[in-house]
Amino acid sequence: MKNTFGNSLSITLFGESHGPYIGAVLDGLAPGMDIDVEFIKDQLLLRRPSGKISTKRVEADEFSFASGVYNGKTTGTPLCILIPNTVQKSSDYGEETERPARPGHADFTARMKYHGFEDYRGGGHFSGRITAALVAAGAVVIPALKDKGIVIGTHIKSLGDIKDRDFSDYGKDIEVLSHKVFAVLDENAEKQMVAKIEDTAAKLDSIGGVLETVVYGMPAGVGEPWFDSVESVLSHGLYSIPGIKGVQFGAGFDLAGGYGSEFNDAFYNDNGSIRTKSNNNGGINGGITNGMPIIIRSAVKPTPSIYKEQDTVLLDSGKDTKLSIQGRHDPAIIHRARVVVDSMTALCVYDLLASRFGTDFFKGDK
Amino acid sequence: MKNTFGNSLSITLFGESHGPYIGAVLDGLAPGMDIDVEFIKDQLLLRRPSGKISTKRVEADEFSFASGVYNGKTTGTPLCILIPNTVQKSSDYGEETERPARPGHADFTARMKYHGFEDYRGGGHFSGRITAALVAAGAVVIPALKDKGIVIGTHIKSLGDIKDRDFSDYGKDIEVLSHKVFAVLDENAEKQMVAKIEDTAAKLDSIGGVLETVVYGMPAGVGEPWFDSVESVLSHGLYSIPGIKGVQFGAGFDLAGGYGSEFNDAFYNDNGSIRTKSNNNGGINGGITNGMPIIIRSAVKPTPSIYKEQDTVLLDSGKDTKLSIQGRHDPAIIHRARVVVDSMTALCVYDLLASRFGTDFFKGDK
Amino acid sequence: MKNTFGNSLSITLFGESHGPYIGAVLDGLAPGMDIDVEFIKDQLLLRRPSGKISTKRVEADEFSFASGVYNGKTTGTPLCILIPNTVQKSSDYGEETERPARPGHADFTARMKYHGFEDYRGGGHFSGRITAALVAAGAVVIPALKDKGIVIGTHIKSLGDIKDRDFSDYGKDIEVLSHKVFAVLDENAEKQMVAKIEDTAAKLDSIGGVLETVVYGMPAGVGEPWFDSVESVLSHGLYSIPGIKGVQFGAGFDLAGGYGSEFNDAFYNDNGSIRTKSNNNGGINGGITNGMPIIIRSAVKPTPSIYKEQDTVLLDSGKDTKLSIQGRHDPAIIHRARVVVDSMTALCVYDLLASRFGTDFFKGDK
Amino acid sequence: MKNTFGNSLSITLFGESHGPYIGAVLDGLAPGMDIDVEFIKDQLLLRRPSGKISTKRVEADEFSFASGVYNGKTTGTPLCILIPNTVQKSSDYGEETERPARPGHADFTARMKYHGFEDYRGGGHFSGRITAALVAAGAVVIPALKDKGIVIGTHIKSLGDIKDRDFSDYGKDIEVLSHKVFAVLDENAEKQMVAKIEDTAAKLDSIGGVLETVVYGMPAGVGEPWFDSVESVLSHGLYSIPGIKGVQFGAGFDLAGGYGSEFNDAFYNDNGSIRTKSNNNGGINGGITNGMPIIIRSAVKPTPSIYKEQDTVLLDSGKDTKLSIQGRHDPAIIHRARVVVDSMTALCVYDLLASRFGTDFFKGDK
Repeated sequence: MKNTFGNSLSITLFGESHGPYIGAVLDGLAPGMDIDVEFIKDQLLLRRPSGKISTKRVEADEFSFASGVYNGKTTGTPLCILIPNTVQKSSDYGEETERPARPGHADFTARMKYHGFEDYRGGGHFSGRITAALVAAGAVVIPALKDKGIVIGTHIKSLGDIKDRDFSDYGKDIEVLSHKVFAVLDENAEKQMVAKIEDTAAKLDSIGGVLETVVYGMPAGVGEPWFDSVESVLSHGLYSIPGIKGVQFGAGFDLAGGYGSEFNDAFYNDNGSIRTKSNNNGGINGGITNGMPIIIRSAVKPTPSIYKEQDTVLLDSGKDTKLSIQGRHDPAIIHRARVVVDSMTALCVYDLLASRFGTDFFKGDK
Repeated sequence: MKNTFGNSLSITLFGESHGPYIGAVLDGLAPGMDIDVEFIKDQLLLRRPSGKISTKRVEADEFSFASGVYNGKTTGTPLCILIPNTVQKSSDYGEETERPARPGHADFTARMKYHGFEDYRGGGHFSGRITAALVAAGAVVIPALKDKGIVIGTHIKSLGDIKDRDFSDYGKDIEVLSHKVFAVLDENAEKQMVAKIEDTAAKLDSIGGVLETVVYGMPAGVGEPWFDSVESVLSHGLYSIPGIKGVQFGAGFDLAGGYGSEFNDAFYNDNGSIRTKSNNNGGINGGITNGMPIIIRSAVKPTPSIYKEQDTVLLDSGKDTKLSIQGRHDPAIIHRARVVVDSMTALCVYDLLASRFGTDFFKGDK
Repeated sequence: MKNTFGNSLSITLFGESHGPYIGAVLDGLAPGMDIDVEFIKDQLLLRRPSGKISTKRVEADEFSFASGVYNGKTTGTPLCILIPNTVQKSSDYGEETERPARPGHADFTARMKYHGFEDYRGGGHFSGRITAALVAAGAVVIPALKDKGIVIGTHIKSLGDIKDRDFSDYGKDIEVLSHKVFAVLDENAEKQMVAKIEDTAAKLDSIGGVLETVVYGMPAGVGEPWFDSVESVLSHGLYSIPGIKGVQFGAGFDLAGGYGSEFNDAFYNDNGSIRTKSNNNGGINGGITNGMPIIIRSAVKPTPSIYKEQDTVLLDSGKDTKLSIQGRHDPAIIHRARVVVDSMTALCVYDLLASRFGTDFFKGDK
Repeated sequence: MKNTFGNSLSITLFGESHGPYIGAVLDGLAPGMDIDVEFIKDQLLLRRPSGKISTKRVEADEFSFASGVYNGKTTGTPLCILIPNTVQKSSDYGEETERPARPGHADFTARMKYHGFEDYRGGGHFSGRITAALVAAGAVVIPALKDKGIVIGTHIKSLGDIKDRDFSDYGKDIEVLSHKVFAVLDENAEKQMVAKIEDTAAKLDSIGGVLETVVYGMPAGVGEPWFDSVESVLSHGLYSIPGIKGVQFGAGFDLAGGYGSEFNDAFYNDNGSIRTKSNNNGGINGGITNGMPIIIRSAVKPTPSIYKEQDTVLLDSGKDTKLSIQGRHDPAIIHRARVVVDSMTALCVYDLLASRFGTDFFKGDK
C-alpha cells in the first residue's frame, strides 16, 4: 500500500524536504489517548542535528495537529500531524544546468521511477527530513504503550569498530537511554564514538553503525505465522527508514554460525511466568511473541553525502562526471536515526497489539 | 493481512503438517503464463530431505492445481495448488499426557495465540512442511520472470564458519546453482559443509548458516520510498520463512562498520547503461531498484529440533521438565531452505513488477 | 485485493465451474469455533437447484476441509474448504468452432481481461457455482455469530411484481426462514412467486427479484465513518455476487423520495436501551451500527441464460450472430441466491466485529 | 483499511468540521499530471452552499498542497491537500450541559464508537464538510481521466417525485452538466426541483433525491470478478459519502422486476467495436467493464438536520428529550452531493485503471 503502512493502526507519510509541509496521518488510534506535546517535542529534538557531530542545519521542527485531537486527547479519528518546512535556501537550487546523481542517494532511482517530475530539492520525498513526521507519529503512541507496560529503547550498539556494552537491566537501561541525546550505555564507548565521528568529519567522510532496539514488556501470543510475523512487520517498517540496510532479530546472523544446542532458548517456569533462559530468538518464535524482550539490530549505512570527490553521472544526459557535495551534511546519522527506529518500532508494536486485542485496547478512561 | 501477502500478486498459504492438504492460492497472475509442471517438481525436490545430511522422512510432494490453470496455462484467475499430506504416523501423536514446549519452536507461542485449539501435530501450521506450498507457488512465477530476463539464484554463503566463494558471474553462477541440490559454488567449501553437517548430526546437534540470494536482470525504477521499499517487501516475505532471523541487503551489516567513501556506489555510464562500480547498496537506493543485481543475505538459524536433552516446560501445567526430541529431524535445513528463499523472492519480485507495470506485464502470447 | 476480501477475517475464493475444485480460504477465524458439518450441508442444499423452478443440474456439493480444522473445531489458522466439481460433461465443450458472447454474461468482459486464456467452460470463475464455496464459508461463521446473539435472515421481498410481507418479528421470522427452501414469509405470495417462475420457464424466459436481509442483534458502535462504513463493507461484499445490480440500506431509494421529518429515526430510551422508533436508516448512522437491525435490500437481475434466441457477437471474430442457449439453466436464481447473500453478509459482519473487538472475540471455550 | 481506500491509488481522509484543517492524501498518483488549480476551485464551489436553496454558511474553502506537487505537476509522491476550517463560532458550542443525539445523524453511533472522546462540534469527522477534501482530491484526477478520454457526469435524476430527463447524448450532456450549479438536464424539472426545495425549507423540513452518474469512455476489461468488481469498488467508495443509502448500477432495482429477455443487453458489432444495444447492466458484466458507459444511481437521504421538533435522547444520561435543531442547515444537499459523487467516482475509476495498466498509465509527458 505504498505510503500507508499498518493493519489496525496505519500511518500515511507525505512531504518533501523543500515543500510546504511534511506530515503523517495516523488512522486507527484508540480514542482518549493523552497527547503529550512536550514528549513529542523532546523526541523531535533527538532527531535534530546538533553540536559538532552533526550538520549545521538547525530547524525548529514546529508541529501542529490538523485533526484527530480534541481537548488534548485522541478522538479516535485520523490524526494528522503537520510539520512546516522553514529552512529553504532556494538559492541552493538556483541555476543548475544538469544535476548529477549523488552516489548512494535516490537521485537516480527517483528519476527512473518519477521520470524527472520528482521534487528533487534536498532529496525531496527521500529526504531524511521526512522521518521527523515518523518521529512525531511515534511519539503519539509511545505513551500509550508505556501505559500498557511496554517500553522501547534503542542504543548505538556499534559505530565503526567501537562497541557499546550489552543491555544489562532492560527497564533501567531504557530509562537511561530516554534521557540521552547520544544513546550509548557505556560512557567510554560513547566518548570513543563521538571522537570517531569528529575524526570522520575531519576526513570529509561519513560513517555507519548498528542500532540495537529492545521492546520490553510485550505480551506473548502476538503476531502471525504467515505473513505478518512480528519479524515481517517490524522489518517492513524499519526498512522504510532511509539508510537501513540490515535488520536482524535476537542473535540474528550470529545464529547462522552456531549450533542448535547453543542457541535454542530453554523455557522455564519463573514463579508462574513462562520465560526463556537465553533470548537468542529475540522474543519471537514462529513469528509470534513469547513474552521475552524483542531484540532488533538495524544496520545504518554511512551517510551517502560526503565532501570527498566522487565519480558519478549526470541525470539527463547520463554523461560521466565528478561530484563534490557541498552544503550541510552529517558525518554520521546513527545517533539521530535512533529515535526514528524507536518510533517506527513503536508504531509497529501498537499495530500488532491493536490487531490482536481490538481497537479499544489503548482507549483512554473518561 | 496475515496469511495473504502481496499487492498486485498475492499469495495465501494454508495447511497443517498433519492435516489433509497444504496449499497456496496465487491471485493476480497474468493470464497465459506457461505452467511448467516438471520445473515445479524439480523445485519441490530441492526442498525435500535427502541423503545423510537430512531427515529420513521422505515424502512424495505430489501436487495438483485446483483452479486457475487451463490447457497448461494460467487463466488469470486464482490459481490454487494442493499438496496432500501423505505420511502421517498417527501413532506418533497417540497417548500423550501433556506436551512439552519444544525450545526454539512455536509450540509455546502457538498455545498463547490459539489457546490450545491449534493442530500441534508435526508443528501444524508452523511446520517447515508448509514451505512446500510456497516453493510450488514460486515455481509458477519463476519461468515468467525468466521470460522477462530476470533470474534468481541462492547459494549457501556460509555454514558455521565455512564460507562459499562470492558470486563472480551472476548469470553463469545462477545457472550452475539451478542444477545443484546442495547449492554451493566452491566445490571445496561444499565438501567441508557437508562434512560439517554430518559431524553435527553425529553430535546430536544442528547447525545454521547464511543464504545469499541474487536477483539479476531487474529493471530500475521499481519499488517505493515509503513503505513498500524493495527491502521492506522482500524482508516482509523472507521473515515469514521459519528459521530466518536476519535479512540484509548489499553489504548489509558490513556497511555499519565502514565509511561512506568506501561504500557509496559510484555511478558510471557503461555504453549507454547507467551502472554502479560497486554494489554495496545491493541494487537498491531509496527503496527503489537501480538496475544493479539485488543482493540479499538471510540468516537461517540452526534447526531447533535436536536430539540432545533440553530444559523446557509442559504446555498445560507450565511445570519444568526435560525433553529429548525423538523422531526424524534435520541437522541442517539451510540447503533445503535455499529453494524456499528463491521462491519467496520470486513471488515478491513478480509482485513488485506487476504493481509497477500492470497486471498484463507477464501475460502470455496467444 | 481482488479475490481476497476482508480485514480481520478475510476470504479468498478460487475455482472454475469445470475445473477440479472450487474452494475458499478463511483467514483470521478465532480458534475453538465449533464446525457444524450438518449445518454447512444444509446451507449448501439451499443453494442447490431443485424441483421444477430450477435447473435440472443436480450436484452433490460434497465438501471437505483441507486445513484449519482439528477435532471438529477451528484452529485459528487458515481454513480451506474444498468442493470438488463432479458433473463435467466434457462433450458439452467439444468441437466448438467459435464461441458467441452470451448476453448479460461475462464471456465478453472475461475475454477483454484474460485475453482468451480464461477457462470459459460453464462460465469458469464467473459461474454461479463459485458461490457454493462462499456459502460453505458463511456456514462456518454463522453459528459463531449466533453464539453472540446475532442472527441473519433473508427473504424474497419481491419477484417480478409479487411482494412478500414485511418482517414483523425479526427473531421469529428469521427462525421460520431458516427452515424454508423458498424463503418467503407470506404463504400466498410464495405460491404466486412459484407460479410466476414456472410461467416464466414456460415462456423460455427468466425473472429477477429483490432479496431483503436483516442482521438482528448487532451491537452499536461497529463500523467506520470513512471508508469502511458498514454500508461500504456490506455492499462491497454483496456486489461480488453474480447477478446483484442494486444494494440499499434501510428505506434506501424510498428515502430519496421523502422528507427528513418522515425518515429521521427518533431515538428513545427503551428501559435503558437506546433504540429508534423507526428504522429508515437500516441500523446504520454515519457508517456505524446503532444497535437496530441492519436492513439490506439486494436487486437480483433475471438469469441472463434464457432459451429464447438472442442477438450477439462471436468472441474471436466479433461477427454478429444469433444465439439460443441450450442446456440446463434456471428461470430464476433468486431463491438460491438468498443463502449466498446470507453467507456474504455473515462474513462481513464477522469481519466488522473482529476488527472492532479483536481476533479472540469469537474464540471458543476450552 | 478505515480512512484509507484504494489499491493502486489510495485516498486517506482526515479532519473534523471545527478542527484546524480537513484534508486528503492521495498516494499512487502518476508523476507529471497537470494540477489545474482553477478547476479544483470550481469543483469546490459546486459543493459550497449558495442561494436560497442552501444553508447560509458560506466558507472560502481555500486549499493548498502540503506535498506532492512541484512546478504545477504531480511528483508521483503522496499529494496532501489541506483545507483550513475558518468559520468556527466557538460560542455555538459553549455552555451546553448535555448534548442530545440528533436523529438521523451519527452523534449516537460516534458516542458508542469513540466513547465520548469524539470532537462532536459541527458533526466532527462525520460532517459533510469533510467531503470538501474528497472533492479537491477528485479534482486532481478528473483532468487526467479526461486526457484518457474518460469523462464523468452526475445529474439529479429525481428530487422527491420530480424527475429529470434521461441522458440522451452522454458526451454533450456531461459537458452541459459541468457548467451547471444545479445539475439538472431538463430546465422544467430544474425549476420544479428548486421550487420544491424552497417549499421544503418553508416547511422547516428537508428532502432527498437520486443522483445518476455516468462514466463515459471507460475501456473494456477493467475490474475483477471477486471481490473487486467494479460495482464493489464504486459502491464501497460511494457508501462512504454521508447520506447515501442506496447504490445501483444500470437498470438496478428495475432489473429485479423484469424478465431476462427484456434486460439482457444484446451485443453487436458497431463498425469494429463491440457494443450492446441496451445498457441495463450499466457497462459492467461479471464485475468487469464492457466498454459501455457505467451507469450508477445513488439515493441521497433527506438532510437529517431539520428545524421541526423531534424526539430523541440525551447522549450521557440516555434520557428522553425533545430537540429543535437551530443554526444553519440545508433543506437539501443533493445538488451539493453531486460533485462529491463525481469525485468519489473519479477516484475509484482512476484506481481501477491504474491497477489494470500500471502506475505510469496516467503519467505526464516531459
